[in-house]
Amino acid sequence: MKRYTLLLLIPFFLVSCKSMPSAQGQSTGRVDVEAKLKELNIQLSPVAPSTASIVKTVRVGNMVYTSGHGPDKPGGGQIFGKVGGDLTLEQGQEAARLTGIALLSSLKAEIGDLSKIKRVVKVFGLVNCTPAFSQQPQVMNAFSDMMVKIWGENGRHARSAVGTNALPNNIAVEIEMIVELY
Amino acid sequence: MKRYTLLLLIPFFLVSCKSMPSAQGQSTGRVDVEAKLKELNIQLSPVAPSTASIVKTVRVGNMVYTSGHGPDKPGGGQIFGKVGGDLTLEQGQEAARLTGIALLSSLKAEIGDLSKIKRVVKVFGLVNCTPAFSQQPQVMNAFSDMMVKIWGENGRHARSAVGTNALPNNIAVEIEMIVELY
Amino acid sequence: MKRYTLLLLIPFFLVSCKSMPSAQGQSTGRVDVEAKLKELNIQLSPVAPSTASIVKTVRVGNMVYTSGHGPDKPGGGQIFGKVGGDLTLEQGQEAARLTGIALLSSLKAEIGDLSKIKRVVKVFGLVNCTPAFSQQPQVMNAFSDMMVKIWGENGRHARSAVGTNALPNNIAVEIEMIVELY
Repeated sequence: MKRYTLLLLIPFFLVSCKSMPSAQGQSTGRVDVEAKLKELNIQLSPVAPSTASIVKTVRVGNMVYTSGHGPDKPGGGQIFGKVGGDLTLEQGQEAARLTGIALLSSLKAEIGDLSKIKRVVKVFGLVNCTPAFSQQPQVMNAFSDMMVKIWGENGRHARSAVGTNALPNNIAVEIEMIVELY
Repeated sequence: MKRYTLLLLIPFFLVSCKSMPSAQGQSTGRVDVEAKLKELNIQLSPVAPSTASIVKTVRVGNMVYTSGHGPDKPGGGQIFGKVGGDLTLEQGQEAARLTGIALLSSLKAEIGDLSKIKRVVKVFGLVNCTPAFSQQPQVMNAFSDMMVKIWGENGRHARSAVGTNALPNNIAVEIEMIVELY
Repeated sequence: MKRYTLLLLIPFFLVSCKSMPSAQGQSTGRVDVEAKLKELNIQLSPVAPSTASIVKTVRVGNMVYTSGHGPDKPGGGQIFGKVGGDLTLEQGQEAARLTGIALLSSLKAEIGDLSKIKRVVKVFGLVNCTPAFSQQPQVMNAFSDMMVKIWGENGRHARSAVGTNALPNNIAVEIEMIVELY
C-alpha cells in the first residue's frame, strides 16, 4: 500500500514545482511595505473611485498594470507646467515623487497590501517639457529611487524616461507602471 | 480497483484548478460582440495584410498586444492634423473613435471572434497636439467609452492618455492596446 | 504492476502538455543568433552594469521587458539631435539601428544566449523630432528590419512608432521592447 501513497504525492509535487518562484538572482525577500512607508515618511492618499470608462489598475494573473498617474499634491491639486520652462528640474523631481505616491496609493487600493508586490517590473515616465529639456532621467530618478528605498533590489525596474510637449491638464509628469505580485 | 480510478482523477483535478479564471470581482460574463457591434452601429473594416517587418497584433498565451493604430476613415484615408491647432477637440474624439474601430478590426483578424476577449487590459493613447492642448483624456474617452459600450465593466481599462508633438503621416491619434482572452 | 507504471506517467504527460508552445502559425524554429549576427556583421557591445535605481532588463516568467535604450555609437558616445531638424531621415535610421544593437546587447547580458528568444513581441519607439516630421515608421523600420533579418517571421512584432519633442540628453531615438523566451 505504501507505494500507492507515494504515487498520490507525485501530482502535488509537480504542481508545486510549477508555482515555485523562478530563481532570478534578484530576490531580496518580502518587504513589510507599511513599515517602510512609515520609516520613509511617505503618506499614501485615499483613492477616489475610478470614473467613466477607465480604471486606475488592472490585474491579470500576478501582474498589475496601472493607468498613467499624475503629481497629486497632498492637500489637493496637482503640479502643473512644463519642466525646463515653467518648472525647474527640482520641481519636476517633486512631481515625479508625488506621482509615485499616487501610483502606490492606487496599487494599495487594488491589492490591499503593498507587501504583496514582489517586483517593480516596468515603468514608463513622461515629462511635460520644453524641446530643449533633456534631463528626463534625472526627473524620473525621484520616482525610481523611492521604489528602491521601499523594495530594495526588487524595486529596480526597467524604465523609459521620455519627454512630451503636452500632458492632460498640463500636469508636469505622467507615469504608468507594471508590478509583479507574489 | 476503485481507489486506483480515483487516483487517476487527481492530476486532472489539479490541472483544471490551475486553468480556472481567477476571481477578480469584475467579470461581467462573455459578451456577444458581433451583436453588440450591430446594436452600436459599428462597422469593422477589412484588414490589409501586415507589410514589412511589423504585424498588427502579437499573441502571447492569452494576451494580445497590438501595434499602434491610427484613425482610418471608412471610405479610405485617415484623419490628419494636430488637435488644438488644425483640429478641434471633437475632431480629435472622432479620430480616437475611428482608431478604436481600426484596433477592433485588427484584433478580429487575429482571434477570429471578438467575443473571445475577456478584458481590455491596458491602453496607451497619444494625441498629436499643440503644446497648449491639455484635453488628451477627453479625446481618448471617445475610444474608452466605446470599449465599455461593448464589454461593459470588462471594457474598463488602465490607460495613459498623453500628448505628442508629431505622429506618423501627421495622423491625429495613435493608440495601442493589450487585451486578455478567455 | 504495469498498469501502475502507466498511472505514474499521467502527471508528467499533463504537465508537459501545459508547457508545449501554443500553435500560432508563426513559429519558424529556433535561430542560431550568434551565427546570424556574424552573417549580418552586427557586433554587440559590452554592457555596463546598471547604475542607480533602474536596470536594463527585467524578466518575468518567459517575458523580458527592457528599459528604453538609445543610439550608442560603437566607439562611444551617442547620436544626438532632432530628426527633421538637426538630423536627416537617414541619420535617424542609423540611430534606430544602433539602438537595436544596444537592446540586443542588454538582452544578451540578461539571458546569456540570444538564441533563447522565441519571439519579438512588442516594440515602442520614440523619435526625437520636429513637429513637422512625420516619417517615424521609416526611422523605426531600420530597427524592425534588423529583428526580421535575425529571427525571420518570429522577428516581426507589434510596434508603435511615435514622435516626441525631447529625449534624454537629446538622443535621436529611444526604443523599448518586450521579447518572449523559449
